[in-house]
Amino acid sequence: MLKQLKQEVLEANLDLPKHKMVTFTWGNVSGIDRERGLVVIKPSGVPYEELKRDDLVVVDLEGNKVEGSLKPSSDTTTHLALYKAFPAIGGIVHTHSPWATSWAQAGMGIPAMGTTHADYFYGEVPCTRPMTEAEIKGAYELETGNVIIETFRSRGIDPAMVPGVLVHAHAPFAWGKDAHEALHNAVVLEEVAKIGHRTVRLNQEVGAMDGTLLDKHFLRKHGANAYYGQSNPEQQ
Amino acid sequence: MLKQLKQEVLEANLDLPKHKMVTFTWGNVSGIDRERGLVVIKPSGVPYEELKRDDLVVVDLEGNKVEGSLKPSSDTTTHLALYKAFPAIGGIVHTHSPWATSWAQAGMGIPAMGTTHADYFYGEVPCTRPMTEAEIKGAYELETGNVIIETFRSRGIDPAMVPGVLVHAHAPFAWGKDAHEALHNAVVLEEVAKIGHRTVRLNQEVGAMDGTLLDKHFLRKHGANAYYGQSNPEQQ
Amino acid sequence: MLKQLKQEVLEANLDLPKHKMVTFTWGNVSGIDRERGLVVIKPSGVPYEELKRDDLVVVDLEGNKVEGSLKPSSDTTTHLALYKAFPAIGGIVHTHSPWATSWAQAGMGIPAMGTTHADYFYGEVPCTRPMTEAEIKGAYELETGNVIIETFRSRGIDPAMVPGVLVHAHAPFAWGKDAHEALHNAVVLEEVAKIGHRTVRLNQEVGAMDGTLLDKHFLRKHGANAYYGQSNPEQQ
Amino acid sequence: MLKQLKQEVLEANLDLPKHKMVTFTWGNVSGIDRERGLVVIKPSGVPYEELKRDDLVVVDLEGNKVEGSLKPSSDTTTHLALYKAFPAIGGIVHTHSPWATSWAQAGMGIPAMGTTHADYFYGEVPCTRPMTEAEIKGAYELETGNVIIETFRSRGIDPAMVPGVLVHAHAPFAWGKDAHEALHNAVVLEEVAKIGHRTVRLNQEVGAMDGTLLDKHFLRKHGANAYYGQSNPEQQ
Repeated sequence: MLKQLKQEVLEANLDLPKHKMVTFTWGNVSGIDRERGLVVIKPSGVPYEELKRDDLVVVDLEGNKVEGSLKPSSDTTTHLALYKAFPAIGGIVHTHSPWATSWAQAGMGIPAMGTTHADYFYGEVPCTRPMTEAEIKGAYELETGNVIIETFRSRGIDPAMVPGVLVHAHAPFAWGKDAHEALHNAVVLEEVAKIGHRTVRLNQEVGAMDGTLLDKHFLRKHGANAYYGQSNPEQQ
Repeated sequence: MLKQLKQEVLEANLDLPKHKMVTFTWGNVSGIDRERGLVVIKPSGVPYEELKRDDLVVVDLEGNKVEGSLKPSSDTTTHLALYKAFPAIGGIVHTHSPWATSWAQAGMGIPAMGTTHADYFYGEVPCTRPMTEAEIKGAYELETGNVIIETFRSRGIDPAMVPGVLVHAHAPFAWGKDAHEALHNAVVLEEVAKIGHRTVRLNQEVGAMDGTLLDKHFLRKHGANAYYGQSNPEQQ
Repeated sequence: MLKQLKQEVLEANLDLPKHKMVTFTWGNVSGIDRERGLVVIKPSGVPYEELKRDDLVVVDLEGNKVEGSLKPSSDTTTHLALYKAFPAIGGIVHTHSPWATSWAQAGMGIPAMGTTHADYFYGEVPCTRPMTEAEIKGAYELETGNVIIETFRSRGIDPAMVPGVLVHAHAPFAWGKDAHEALHNAVVLEEVAKIGHRTVRLNQEVGAMDGTLLDKHFLRKHGANAYYGQSNPEQQ
Repeated sequence: MLKQLKQEVLEANLDLPKHKMVTFTWGNVSGIDRERGLVVIKPSGVPYEELKRDDLVVVDLEGNKVEGSLKPSSDTTTHLALYKAFPAIGGIVHTHSPWATSWAQAGMGIPAMGTTHADYFYGEVPCTRPMTEAEIKGAYELETGNVIIETFRSRGIDPAMVPGVLVHAHAPFAWGKDAHEALHNAVVLEEVAKIGHRTVRLNQEVGAMDGTLLDKHFLRKHGANAYYGQSNPEQQ
């Protein structure tokens, strides 16, 4: 069942330690089959070096386990909330990658300060507001998803244009059209968080980059007129 | 004698260089057999790449060598003091891991600033007070243990809830229910020290995280109602 | 065609991940055959682990593709502008290496603060001015080259003496007499950016190093009286 | 000739890349045979991966080449000055290791801020004064040695107790009783520079550690009453 999706999700999970994105088991990747409404996700607390394809857990969008002998990630409900709210995304990654997590702990979004950022994120990577006591004591993982969704909706941010977020006092989530792209964006987010951190150390006053340059770089790689890479029409 | 405990202590010692926690021989792990009152510890100054199970030294809780041809770690007396004062712990790790050591040198505890910290440490990782001249000139390694114990007792901190400490102008100690968990907590402490350092660089005013969020994350992984990982009851 | 140049350019491209200079495909190296007026450059968006010599693209100085089935790097036009303006250079490297990129994002040149810098760069590595809206919306990659050239000409900097630049809010370019030396200088630029960043953190007031010491170190390795390495006359 | 010394010097040179102390060829190790008054040193500009024992150069204390087909390191004269002034040392390492170099560029000595430092350096690792124009234009490498010697003599520092120095706007030198110990101290100096840098970022007011604690740690590993490691008498 969902053999290909499981393979993709397995590979993206195994890419986390390969890209030095995780300490111990601090991360998880999921992918969705939109037609069937089923999500494949890493089991909770299983070390990456032992992870096999058949350890992955299949759940429906209400969180009912459909296949798998292990418990799904404790963050599963957050993933499901995002899949339901953001119909264009097909994969989600959650990590505690240290540079992005330091911005999340500082309660600060990462401004777009250069083209590395602009190549992937069309503006600031936002940081959510602190969660309320009721949200934390209630359906915490669901409310974590809800505060992410609120952040994007209330600020009018398109999750396809800014494929990541910092959860306040917690850590990043990133996403993409599939698990592989979500992983890619999570790695970029960590790199952008690192470069941005060092930029601010040199110059506190930098602020957001020029809007025209942001447009140029984001649209050079994304959208109808993209011309980066081999799959886009040639335009030199 | 103590074959299984020695194997555990050996593996935890060898995990130190694997997790890049040590330069040269700057670290040691011990484990205790509570029934027999015997401690297995790394010998002093032996490189990890040469360390064999039979190089490990067995001492009793008074520091008398019971087995082994090598001298035990120069920090043995500190380990023994902690085992005697903290009956719930079964393994201890001491390193000079650089991020945690920088907090120790700064004389500052690491506030709980995010969920990565809260998943393992139920509040600030404390820094001990400076040792007095008499303590340093006296039974130094014993007094190092005593100042750790004083820190936990005088501040009412449960060492099972905060499994690590920074010794002022020195470096961290971490512990756990066995040598493996102690090693795990030492690695987490270093990661938390790193992320916390970077957080403070971005925002000096962060301070301690919300107490409800701290509770939620610590109790999600620890205690009777824990639901993280495969060994806890399912609760999504 | 250009078999040896392609081999050099391939090796220099593969040296980028080896020296941890790139995340994913964020970098490219080119080399020029000055006699034929032909440039060999990395194709756009191809992962380094898959890159083969015959994937490299040959273009003329006007950007016409002369050989190769893939699209050349989206930065090709920038490379060509530099080759035309700086006749002494034979290889160019562009990366988003994180330390140098943080200076570029901060909009700051890297002052020569020590002999590591002076051994390779005869003074500050400059940062270009921000590009105008017209430049960004126009022939962007060409204008990126033009703003680099303007920086060197208007400030009277010899590109053979300062073989690198930071493009404002973007990232570094480095060059050399061939692709191999360009790669070497790009790695040095990243190292110098790292050490310089840490220097400024310790002491904001450092500023440029003593001019006599700058002369001594640069000229010890470069020019007619150089005496570093095995190819220069002995002078102890 | 000097086969064993050459082997030691070769191994210490090869340990530089192993401990990530060097970029390209930016470092050199030498060792001295005090009885014969001969020094073995790395040749100038030779990559570590190609370095063979017979590439090492033998010079006398006046800098005359006694054996070897290659040119010795351009820093040879500095090494010789140190061997002549500091009779207790048997090996010298020079690198541009990035943390120590950042202190050197900042023109700041590294205060003893914790026991990691105190285990190896009995007080601040000093930074030399800036060299004069006459010194730089004159016998530069000799004067580099002289300014190091002046620093130790004028401040009354024993080079056996503080086995390293930062040369202003340049980089560190470290030494020891032989090439192996010099290498060891160079690695420690880099680690101490890293931890110290991070300490100062957290707390600008730290300053030098307690003198009694400095004594305790230095003398625990060095001198007549040392009890760290397997070669010292047992004292728990």
